[in-house]
Order: sequence, then C-alpha cells, then structure tokens
Amino acid sequence: MNTAVKGRLTGVGTGPGDPELLTLKAVRALNEADVVAFFCKKGSGGNGRAIVDAHIRPGTIEMPLVYPVTVETHKDDTGYKEPIAAFFDRSAEDIAAHLDEGRNVAVLSEGDPLFYGSYMHLHVRLAHRYGTEVIAGVTAMSGCWSTAGLPLVQGDDILSILPGTLPEEKLVERLVDTDAAVIMKVGRNLPKIRRALQAVNKLSGALYVERGTMANGTAQRLEERDEAPAPYFSLVLVPGWKTRP
Amino acid sequence: MNTAVKGRLTGVGTGPGDPELLTLKAVRALNEADVVAFFCKKGSGGNGRAIVDAHIRPGTIEMPLVYPVTVETHKDDTGYKEPIAAFFDRSAEDIAAHLDEGRNVAVLSEGDPLFYGSYMHLHVRLAHRYGTEVIAGVTAMSGCWSTAGLPLVQGDDILSILPGTLPEEKLVERLVDTDAAVIMKVGRNLPKIRRALQAVNKLSGALYVERGTMANGTAQRLEERDEAPAPYFSLVLVPGWKTRP
Ligand SMILES: C[S@@+](CC[C@H](N)C(=O)[O-])C[C@H]1O[C@@H](n2cnc3c(N)ncnc32)[C@H](O)[C@@H]1O
Ligand SMILES: C[S@@+](CC[C@H](N)C(=O)[O-])C[C@H]1O[C@@H](n2cnc3c(N)ncnc32)[C@H](O)[C@@H]1O
Repeated sequence: MNTAVKGRLTGVGTGPGDPELLTLKAVRALNEADVVAFFCKKGSGGNGRAIVDAHIRPGTIEMPLVYPVTVETHKDDTGYKEPIAAFFDRSAEDIAAHLDEGRNVAVLSEGDPLFYGSYMHLHVRLAHRYGTEVIAGVTAMSGCWSTAGLPLVQGDDILSILPGTLPEEKLVERLVDTDAAVIMKVGRNLPKIRRALQAVNKLSGALYVERGTMANGTAQRLEERDEAPAPYFSLVLVPGWKTRP
Repeated sequence: MNTAVKGRLTGVGTGPGDPELLTLKAVRALNEADVVAFFCKKGSGGNGRAIVDAHIRPGTIEMPLVYPVTVETHKDDTGYKEPIAAFFDRSAEDIAAHLDEGRNVAVLSEGDPLFYGSYMHLHVRLAHRYGTEVIAGVTAMSGCWSTAGLPLVQGDDILSILPGTLPEEKLVERLVDTDAAVIMKVGRNLPKIRRALQAVNKLSGALYVERGTMANGTAQRLEERDEAPAPYFSLVLVPGWKTRP
C-alpha cells in the first residue's frame, strides 16, 4: 500500500501574455512546484511556458503536453474527438504519476484556467482524486480591453461572450440583444464575424485585438482589418456603456 | 504657461480580494505612484485600499474618493444621477490637479478596471487629457469560480454576464439561451435571481459565492442559500460545459 503523502495539483493562470500580468500567487505556486506542465503544439515551446520563464526554479521538472492534432483545423472532424480525449486521459495519468510520488504539479493555463482553458480537461479528471487549487488569472479579454483603454461594460450592461466558431445566424441572434460582446476564437471565422456584426449594425464600434498585452500586440477597428485569417491570439471587442458621458 | 511634465494616470486592477491575486504590474505601478486614489464609502477605508495595503510606499499621498450616496440603495432614484455625476467630475478634477503638478496617480479598481468598475468614470474624463495606462486585473467572477473549482465555459459555450439589477423577465430571457451565466450585483435581487433561474430550469446547477477569494469567503448551492439580502461582494455562477466527461 502506498502511504506516501500525495502531491498537490495547481492550475495556474498565467494571464494573457505580458509576464508582468502574472499574479503574486502564480509566482509563488511556480516556486513551490516540483513539476511544471504546459500544453503546446509540436515544434513550439508553448506560449504559457514562455510567459512564466523568469519564474521557473532550476531543477524543476518540465512536462510539455504536446497536442496530438491541430486544434483549430480539425475541430469539426469526426476523427478529432477520440484522439484528443485519449490525449487528455494520458496527460492526466502522467500528471497523476507525479502526484502519487508526492510531487507538486503546476499546470499552466493561459489567461484564466477555468475560462475556456485546456487545463479544465485535466481538472475534471484529477481534482476529485488529489488536493487541487486553481489560481485565477487575468483573462485575454481583460488584457485586450485594458491595452486598448476601451471601457467595456458599466451599470446594467449585459455582456455576451461568444466563440467565433458559432454559426453565423447564432452569432447574429446573440449579438442583437446584448449591450456588449467579446468574440473569442477568431481565426478563419473573421469574415463571418464581420458579417454578423454588420447585420446587427454593431460593426463600426468593434475593435479587433491581436496578441493583446504581448510585445508585438496590435489593436485596430475591425472595419479596417483586412480579410486574411486572424492568428490564434486574437479577439473582437464590442463595447457597451451607451450612456457614457 | 505651465510647461511642467504632466504626471501619468494609471487604472490599477487590484483583483477580487486576495492580496496575492495582485499582478506584478499592479505592484510596480503602486511603487511608482506619487498618489494612490481609491473609491470608498463614508466611514469605510475602502476594499481596494485594503487589498493593496502591503504595497503602498511610505510618503505616498492617499486620496480617498468618498461616494456621496449609497450606490446600491439610490440607484433608481431620479435624485441619484446628478450628485453622482458631480462627484465623478469633482474627483476627476482633483486627480487632474495632481497630474498637472507632475505627480503620477494610481487609481485602484477592484477586479478589472474596465469591467463594471467605478474607475471607468474617471477614465472617460481624463484619458484623453493625460498619458494613461490601464492595468488589467483578475475579475471577481474568475476569483469566484477558481476558489470554487468550478469549470465555467469550454469549447463553443456562450457565457452571458448579467447584472442582477435587470428586470425579472429580462433575466429569464437572457438565461434561456445561454450555456453559462454570471449574475453580478446580487444584493436585494437574490429572490428575483432565484425565481428567474428556476423559471428556466437552471437553479439546481447555480452556485452562490460571497466574498470570493477574501479571508471569510464562502460558496454554496444557490438553492441552499437563505432569502436574506446578499452582501455587496457576492455573485451567482451558472456553469456551462454540458458535455464534460
Ligand atoms: C482556448 S481560449 C483560452 C482563453 C483563456 N483561458 C482566457 O482566460 O482568456 C483561446 C482564445 O483566447 C483568445 N486569446 C488568448 N490570448 C489572447 C491574446 N493575448 N490576445 C488576444 N486574444 C487572445 C483568442 O480568442 C483565443 O482563440
Ligand atoms: C461594480 S462591480 C465591479 C466588478 C469588478 N470590476 C470586476 O472586475 O469583477 C461589483 C460587483 O462585483 C461582484 N464582486 C466583486 N468582488 C467580489 C467578490 N470578491 N466576491 C463575489 N462577488 C464580487 C459583485 O457582484 C458586485 O456587485
């Protein structure tokens, strides 16, 4: 029987890109971690890992979790669900092996962990089995509207957060009745998002933000953005607060 | 003619309550500030001020901005709008006086500054006149779902952020068509929020969080919460991710 004290699992929000947007609590968790795990694509070091670079102690075990397929491209393929579920299962068990040995494992999550983050797939597989803590992070959307200095919602405003992957008519439906909106996962959905905003007469106020808070980040009116597919790190902001002075 | 270099205005997100959820950038801004301004109620030191207490340099000028009326109670009074607008005008001019003298002013904002924050009223009055930076913060909702370990949204989920101050039928309307929801500004709206969630069959999954990430914070199923008015620092979470394994 294994009576060793188990390690702790910590989901660490890294914020949207600027390493200074790490919280003090995230920095402490990285200092206390024996193992730091992070998702990445094949051939890439991982954006989350880059954000926390200055805070990894020497001797920390690094554990890249390499996506088996390109998430963006294969999302609707029937062949996508199974390998990705198997990948999360396997990643969870690899982490569990460290936890069973008493090692504390920090899993990096860009932005906030429980807000559309890959960490969630590990959380639901492990949190009931091990002592677990989630450290909230600054979301991508907060980073983007702050960089742009764009007041987003005030008073009784309703804010709708919409994945750009939704069908066009669904986007239109949700955009009609909201005061403000954030559209995540832009990528190849850019032309569709633009048409949906145009249809509800909300295109002119919309802001397109790419790599918000990162060194090479940009923001521009969505109307002025060309039609080339957007990079992974981009989103669209539709501000509310119509009565602002 | 005043040719002195003007000071910089910084909106500083303090996060939801736990002082460790301050970002490194917020800590640096507090270190560089000559003046730290913060909203508070008469007779209270201000929650934002308490969060940053460990990071105020000796010699920093402190500038409490005391609300002239109780925001919660008088919101719909016709007599509310004018004194509050005058208060924001006056506060902005007091800050401008420091900026004109070349002093850097940090304005504290609980959670994230441009997300339903009082700082926004100063931002729209000052950002076009002075060098201004907004430092994103961890929102109250992120702090609450992280503390509770509650995965909120994943994949193609739609998240609706709704102020509890909305009329009941509007709440019902917005709750029907969303995958997940956050209901802010609970207070006296608690019974109405509960009825609205019941009406759309989403009460059983809803979580009520009070003073999330603060030392005395609690979370419980909304169904089990009694009918006493909720404190200012409380919100309701309705999780999405129906297909979670
Ligand atoms: C899987 S979600 C993760 C969200 C993250 N957990 C958060 O809290 O914001 C990825 C999406 O977030 C947005 N995103 C993430 N980082 C961003 C950045 N620095 N600038 C703009 N958008 C970003 C993009 O829309 C991207 O498709
Ligand atoms: C004026 S809004 C400010 C929101 C803030 N700027 C943010 O980024 O979350 C105030 C509302 O936030 C929520 N709130 C703020 N702090 C909270 C906390 N620690 N726990 C629960 N709710 C909180 C409450 O619903 C409250 O009515």
